[in-house]
Amino acid sequence: MADEKLPSRSEDFSEWYNQLVLRAELADYAPVRGCMVVRPYGWALWENIQQALDRRFKATGHQNVAFPLFIPRSFIDKEKHHVEGFSPELAVVTIGGGEELAEPLVVRPTSETIVGHMWSKWIKSYRDLPVLMNQWNSVVRWEMRTKLFLRTLEFFWQEGHTAHATREEAEVETRQMLDIYTDFAVNDAAIPVVPGRKSDSEKFAGADITYSIEAMMGDGKALQAGTSHFLGQNFAEAFEVRYLDQGGQLQHCWTTSWGLSTRFIGAIIMVHGDDQGLVLPPKLAPYQAVVVPIYKTDEEKATVLAAAKNVRTTLAAAGIRVKLDEREGMSPGWKFNDWEMRGVPVRIELGPKDVAKQSAMLARRDKPGKEGKTPAALEGLAQSVTALLGEIQKSMHDRALAFREAHTRVSNTYDEFKTAVETGFASAHWCGGGECEARIKEETRATHRCIPMEQPAGTGTCVLCGKPSPERAIFARAY
Amino acid sequence: MADEKLPSRSEDFSEWYNQLVLRAELADYAPVRGCMVVRPYGWALWENIQQALDRRFKATGHQNVAFPLFIPRSFIDKEKHHVEGFSPELAVVTIGGGEELAEPLVVRPTSETIVGHMWSKWIKSYRDLPVLMNQWNSVVRWEMRTKLFLRTLEFFWQEGHTAHATREEAEVETRQMLDIYTDFAVNDAAIPVVPGRKSDSEKFAGADITYSIEAMMGDGKALQAGTSHFLGQNFAEAFEVRYLDQGGQLQHCWTTSWGLSTRFIGAIIMVHGDDQGLVLPPKLAPYQAVVVPIYKTDEEKATVLAAAKNVRTTLAAAGIRVKLDEREGMSPGWKFNDWEMRGVPVRIELGPKDVAKQSAMLARRDKPGKEGKTPAALEGLAQSVTALLGEIQKSMHDRALAFREAHTRVSNTYDEFKTAVETGFASAHWCGGGECEARIKEETRATHRCIPMEQPAGTGTCVLCGKPSPERAIFARAY
Repeated sequence: MADEKLPSRSEDFSEWYNQLVLRAELADYAPVRGCMVVRPYGWALWENIQQALDRRFKATGHQNVAFPLFIPRSFIDKEKHHVEGFSPELAVVTIGGGEELAEPLVVRPTSETIVGHMWSKWIKSYRDLPVLMNQWNSVVRWEMRTKLFLRTLEFFWQEGHTAHATREEAEVETRQMLDIYTDFAVNDAAIPVVPGRKSDSEKFAGADITYSIEAMMGDGKALQAGTSHFLGQNFAEAFEVRYLDQGGQLQHCWTTSWGLSTRFIGAIIMVHGDDQGLVLPPKLAPYQAVVVPIYKTDEEKATVLAAAKNVRTTLAAAGIRVKLDEREGMSPGWKFNDWEMRGVPVRIELGPKDVAKQSAMLARRDKPGKEGKTPAALEGLAQSVTALLGEIQKSMHDRALAFREAHTRVSNTYDEFKTAVETGFASAHWCGGGECEARIKEETRATHRCIPMEQPAGTGTCVLCGKPSPERAIFARAY
Repeated sequence: MADEKLPSRSEDFSEWYNQLVLRAELADYAPVRGCMVVRPYGWALWENIQQALDRRFKATGHQNVAFPLFIPRSFIDKEKHHVEGFSPELAVVTIGGGEELAEPLVVRPTSETIVGHMWSKWIKSYRDLPVLMNQWNSVVRWEMRTKLFLRTLEFFWQEGHTAHATREEAEVETRQMLDIYTDFAVNDAAIPVVPGRKSDSEKFAGADITYSIEAMMGDGKALQAGTSHFLGQNFAEAFEVRYLDQGGQLQHCWTTSWGLSTRFIGAIIMVHGDDQGLVLPPKLAPYQAVVVPIYKTDEEKATVLAAAKNVRTTLAAAGIRVKLDEREGMSPGWKFNDWEMRGVPVRIELGPKDVAKQSAMLARRDKPGKEGKTPAALEGLAQSVTALLGEIQKSMHDRALAFREAHTRVSNTYDEFKTAVETGFASAHWCGGGECEARIKEETRATHRCIPMEQPAGTGTCVLCGKPSPERAIFARAY
């Protein structure tokens, strides 16, 4: 609802975010601490994200499945790093049907263990490989400090799980999924991301290598927006996932997993939003265009609503997700604010004068005020709106990229580094040592985000200890 | 896998079902008792069911949302019938993040309570109504006797929840959703169903009226395949869901809920399947057509595969879900059996002679043997297959309807009734009393399924006690 103004982004980014999520009716707090309810507008956004990803997963041969919510407690203990990482975060069912359970059940924090267990039954021969699976579900991790979308006890995501005959094939898969996340972020969410490799201390519990895409939020902080893990043979060994190769030898599989969650909605909000509210990328916006009719008299109302309905029909037929705001008792100005809060990319204003001229006023959400307004003829309006949506999509990406570039500093000294992470990303050489990483975190509150896949030529020396370093890493304060 | 023959349906219907689910790779048993893993082929079927329903829900103004998995234990206690019905079936989380929880959390068995709690925050005025929501998720009920798809501890479903200003509007909604389920079952799943009203003893815990669609399985038993509940003001009162009406008075809302689950997959299997395996309705089948290439020499292989790929491309372009079975090392006959097991509606056999004649052999899954085979020219094949799929869809429905009619007996005496429920449905007058219902159940193992919406003219007398009865009910043994 648009009745009160939001806190400004520059004054209190965190509170701006919290209130925006509630007031744009994306989500609300559930009665259980740390859980959220995703409301219709938020879920419609998530459904568009799901479709954009699912299409890509299926095009690369993955099939959807559903593994169960409950995992025997003993499964978590079978992979040594996995148990260390997840034990403190588990929700445990101890009572079922009124009786104490002999073995407690864990509500899945992620499904590598149960997937491994089932694969050990299903996979027999090299002919059964690769196995390429994905599931859309929710998982539970007992987080102490929560924030809507960014970190909640239960969150919604997809988790991909694949098994392969060779290390090479599994590595290619891991990188392919990183590329798919990058492509989705850049082209559908208009979020430029840095794909790269995590440090040992930041990788998934049980992975040999974790890759991630890292995005810069509007306050200069980093957000990990998707991860792809090369799991080596760790889970295959723990769960005896083996196949007979072409020579009749029993071999362990090589496996991967990869996930992207409702956290990504937080990224969309924090990358693109402004003081007026959400700014949603056209490709993912629940409504791409909203028609606001403007009238005073009953006669004007009849004329304008008839024209507005025509506009809705024409745009919908052209595949544009369009909403006609016919609500009674709210002024056009109030509606403008309301749809700005909700981030609809294009507003179509239609009054009696516009109808007389067979024209409408198009207002871009990403360019407030007069600068973003252009009249367009009703004839051919669908083409005009489609073109404008394309322009907005591109412009939102370019602006986010320019912002990230302006707030990323090549840091060759520790002083430069410390300044850089005050406002954004530091691109710095790092020796690869856990000690330097820990000291940097303690002294600057910046964490190792990733070693970007794209690297400038040449080597350097660690920004902290001065030891040789072959690659630059991105460090930043992070969500 | 098609290596061994299934038990025959007539000899052991239950074991035929169990083995078919496993061997068609629809689902498997999870390591936790009573839970299931839905495999890719089963989940693809569920995704088609989801799309068919979701389209109908959205066309009638419903929006998807996500309520949380965890519900405070105290919520369940707030509606007196609800707590009685669900308490014995709850899974309870008592430990989170390594600590005992102050208030145990229930894994949702259904979401009326938490939806009611959130609505009490969101709904203020008549302007906020109606609220029309749906969610796709899984729920947990601690069942003791489980069977894949039909009854599992965790199952996948959609649960719709709506709130209205008036009783009439809520009643219309309840009936509308019953109609939508009926339309889906009949037109998409080719399952003729009896929509009707449940008896008091069979209704949802907390509902004033429960409607259901009841389907007859291939063994004559009934399966409740979807339910729509008129909840009156029961949950609105328990959770204080109120709105200010146009006169400024505070009123309780009238609410509904409705659900259809992966149980429906069990219905599809048991209505249409035969001794060779699944028979899937074309509108929901993951693959509508499978191309099996037939060749011996390398030269034949080259010719046939090239033609088969053309067929795949042409059919896919026409919107047909088509699979080309290029597997090496399996004979065409083995592949025929495999796809029969999986119930693909149309098999397209393509050998060197067919290619020479620019023709292919189409084999219908619903009519085994020569009767179901017709040659079709490669030119215009997409149209031929589309037409054939339409014919199969209709023919499957008609056959299931004829079966149900042949196994439904109007029973005017208790003896007729007892004979009827040995092989199918009994349509009988019943006084409406719980005692007669209980005695019938005890003596015949048949339960009250529903009072059909469509009733013959005239009244009668209860088949057991002889008291007057205004309507006939369906009784049957049930899953």
